[in-house]
Amino acid sequence: MKQLINPTVKEIKECLLRPQLKQGNLKELVLKVANEIKDRGDIALMEYTQRFDHVNLKTLTLSADDISKAASLVSEPLKEAIKTAAVNIQRFHESQKMESVKIETAPGVVCWQEQKAIEKVGLYIPGGTAPLFSTVLMLGIPAQIAGCKEVVLCTPPNKEGSIAPAIAYAAQVAGITKVVTVGGVQAIMAMAYGTESVPSVDKIFGPGNQYVTAAKQAIGLDQCAIDMPAGPSEVMVLADNTAYANFIAADLLSQAEHGSDSQVIMVTNHRALIDSVTEEVYKQLEQLDRKELADGALKNSVLIYVEEESQMIDIANQYAPEHLILSMDHPREVASKINHAGSIFLGHYTPESAGDYASGTNHTLPTNGWARSYSGVNLDAFTKKITFQEISREGLLNLGNTIEIMAEAEQLDAHKNAVSVRLKQIKER
Amino acid sequence: MKQLINPTVKEIKECLLRPQLKQGNLKELVLKVANEIKDRGDIALMEYTQRFDHVNLKTLTLSADDISKAASLVSEPLKEAIKTAAVNIQRFHESQKMESVKIETAPGVVCWQEQKAIEKVGLYIPGGTAPLFSTVLMLGIPAQIAGCKEVVLCTPPNKEGSIAPAIAYAAQVAGITKVVTVGGVQAIMAMAYGTESVPSVDKIFGPGNQYVTAAKQAIGLDQCAIDMPAGPSEVMVLADNTAYANFIAADLLSQAEHGSDSQVIMVTNHRALIDSVTEEVYKQLEQLDRKELADGALKNSVLIYVEEESQMIDIANQYAPEHLILSMDHPREVASKINHAGSIFLGHYTPESAGDYASGTNHTLPTNGWARSYSGVNLDAFTKKITFQEISREGLLNLGNTIEIMAEAEQLDAHKNAVSVRLKQIKER
Repeated sequence: MKQLINPTVKEIKECLLRPQLKQGNLKELVLKVANEIKDRGDIALMEYTQRFDHVNLKTLTLSADDISKAASLVSEPLKEAIKTAAVNIQRFHESQKMESVKIETAPGVVCWQEQKAIEKVGLYIPGGTAPLFSTVLMLGIPAQIAGCKEVVLCTPPNKEGSIAPAIAYAAQVAGITKVVTVGGVQAIMAMAYGTESVPSVDKIFGPGNQYVTAAKQAIGLDQCAIDMPAGPSEVMVLADNTAYANFIAADLLSQAEHGSDSQVIMVTNHRALIDSVTEEVYKQLEQLDRKELADGALKNSVLIYVEEESQMIDIANQYAPEHLILSMDHPREVASKINHAGSIFLGHYTPESAGDYASGTNHTLPTNGWARSYSGVNLDAFTKKITFQEISREGLLNLGNTIEIMAEAEQLDAHKNAVSVRLKQIKER
Repeated sequence: MKQLINPTVKEIKECLLRPQLKQGNLKELVLKVANEIKDRGDIALMEYTQRFDHVNLKTLTLSADDISKAASLVSEPLKEAIKTAAVNIQRFHESQKMESVKIETAPGVVCWQEQKAIEKVGLYIPGGTAPLFSTVLMLGIPAQIAGCKEVVLCTPPNKEGSIAPAIAYAAQVAGITKVVTVGGVQAIMAMAYGTESVPSVDKIFGPGNQYVTAAKQAIGLDQCAIDMPAGPSEVMVLADNTAYANFIAADLLSQAEHGSDSQVIMVTNHRALIDSVTEEVYKQLEQLDRKELADGALKNSVLIYVEEESQMIDIANQYAPEHLILSMDHPREVASKINHAGSIFLGHYTPESAGDYASGTNHTLPTNGWARSYSGVNLDAFTKKITFQEISREGLLNLGNTIEIMAEAEQLDAHKNAVSVRLKQIKER
């Protein structure tokens, strides 16, 4: 890990750059798959599945029985842990329901918003050696609270054509009944355009590799909505002289192990931490199964010493981290000054992995600086707000002339006339 | 206007299709402009302005004095109308502030969300014969309430190199001080990438023609966020036997006059309205300045008769209209059954133009069926929510094992270790 002591503005800017991913000809590839799926539906899905997942499927949708069978293989302790996490996620996302408030903006003019479910949503869960069943909870539970009518989960099949037991169990816990064994770009395109087995949805959620991300970007402002543009995971830790070097090292490594394109950064005003955290990181690294991945990420990573707490806060706001850990004496005060971050972890006993699994907050968060403009996934993400207005005769008598004058100034006669015909009738009564 | 009496499912589906826009080689063109702006900044902006707006500008940013001078030309009645509208818009968007609620999801585990301003936003206001100063209010006021620190307004210059007086005045009312006289694709790219005169922003808002829309789509999931994918305006009216044909005709025409690619639809269970509304539409059409545009839109439009109110509601939900007017005896009951719409207007005295200008709701709304997944612009659009969590030692003792089990099952050792090192220290104390 690089160390920067009292860096210049330019040095800070450079070290906060995210690792650049090679894009290559992703766009062309994604377009090709999209056309195949649009033209040939399930047949194309099955061909891609054979090619990339090396399994020959006759049906793409798992039956309730298939799901139950897979779920039953989960150990009791893991089942209990998943249920505990689910309860916390449920509680926190339930609390995000918006109450409708009617506002009389002018006498006789009443306006309000109502939160309504997005009807059809698609959840993408990547495959791989370690199936991310926690993401099933993070996406499935808010979808259920929102009241989404159709929830389809796509995930690549294993060699047996089924899915990981923990994913099946998490799907059950989140009330998901439609599980399709298809992954990659083809899964995103199937949910965007629809096939015989996969319904087209209004919004697609979930993480994925650069192919999946490119597929989501390709359809995201064109065919259906997506949760957010995604990128490699990242964490920033702000630490003062009350912090524990071994806690910080563990937190940095827990992001680093996601992949060699991840980035982890500590910023401190306690100089001794620069060396003690470095030492702890390399000590703990030795014990990790995913040591190589983590080591790769450490090459993108940096420990920064600055003198003032205010500089630490500025750097955090400049970086807009996905995860921000405040290993500090007075984390609430510092948190109040953070303007851009996905999720913030306060104090020494709030590791980022708590939010990844079980504190109740969502772990699907904006990376790559998108925290400047995007929220993480929350109940809002599975809903939209409709505005309403109801104007009485008296209301229109009050407001009508204002509308007429403005419409006329925008040279929109018919807009004006929609008020005029009503005012005329009201006055003639 | 087409008339459909007791249509089949297929006929309904066909008549609810949106008019298709020709895309052509928009993507290439947009990419070319993006590269020019990235390479040559203001110089390129000035060249494009000369080419498309036929004016040779020496500076792109208006001074406070320029803005005041333009604003002073607005008539007193229009000033009063703009101020009245602004108060209502302010009241309604103020009411959308989210209060932070702390939830103890498990003993010692506290989670909450906070709404924070998006720091830098760009507002695009199209030019043309009728400058849309109302959109300045609709975007500028929520930006101000949110607390966005940098608000830049881009709008094409007139022949004198200045802007329409009403736009200048509305900018003053909305507290906007940075106005740049640049329009089109080049304005969007300048706000996305930044130039000497135009700061790069975190999110771009505002309507525009198909070029502007293509530019927003090109950068929207890549360089900065955008409000929503936009398309031609549309309205659907649900009407029963209490409705007035001349009101409905005026409402349909007020959308139709936006452009020949707009679409207007009435659905009724009162058969007589099909003929009476048709008659009124063509009668009122004759008196409109924008008669030709409106007439073009009527070619995309339809009046539908069905027998049951429930069918009317189904058709509205299938269409997911930008604007939905409920010219009905019991609009609240009907409104409660609408799941997809941008903004809903209840009763006979709530014309859609009220929402366009002055009721207080926002007029920047999802078109082209995007109301299924997108909200209109509201306070949320200028903010993002950060999640927070704070776990006490006791909290981590309670929850730690759950996290360890789940992290282990996902084969993420370091995630587990971030909890384990803390549990070890707590227990050793």
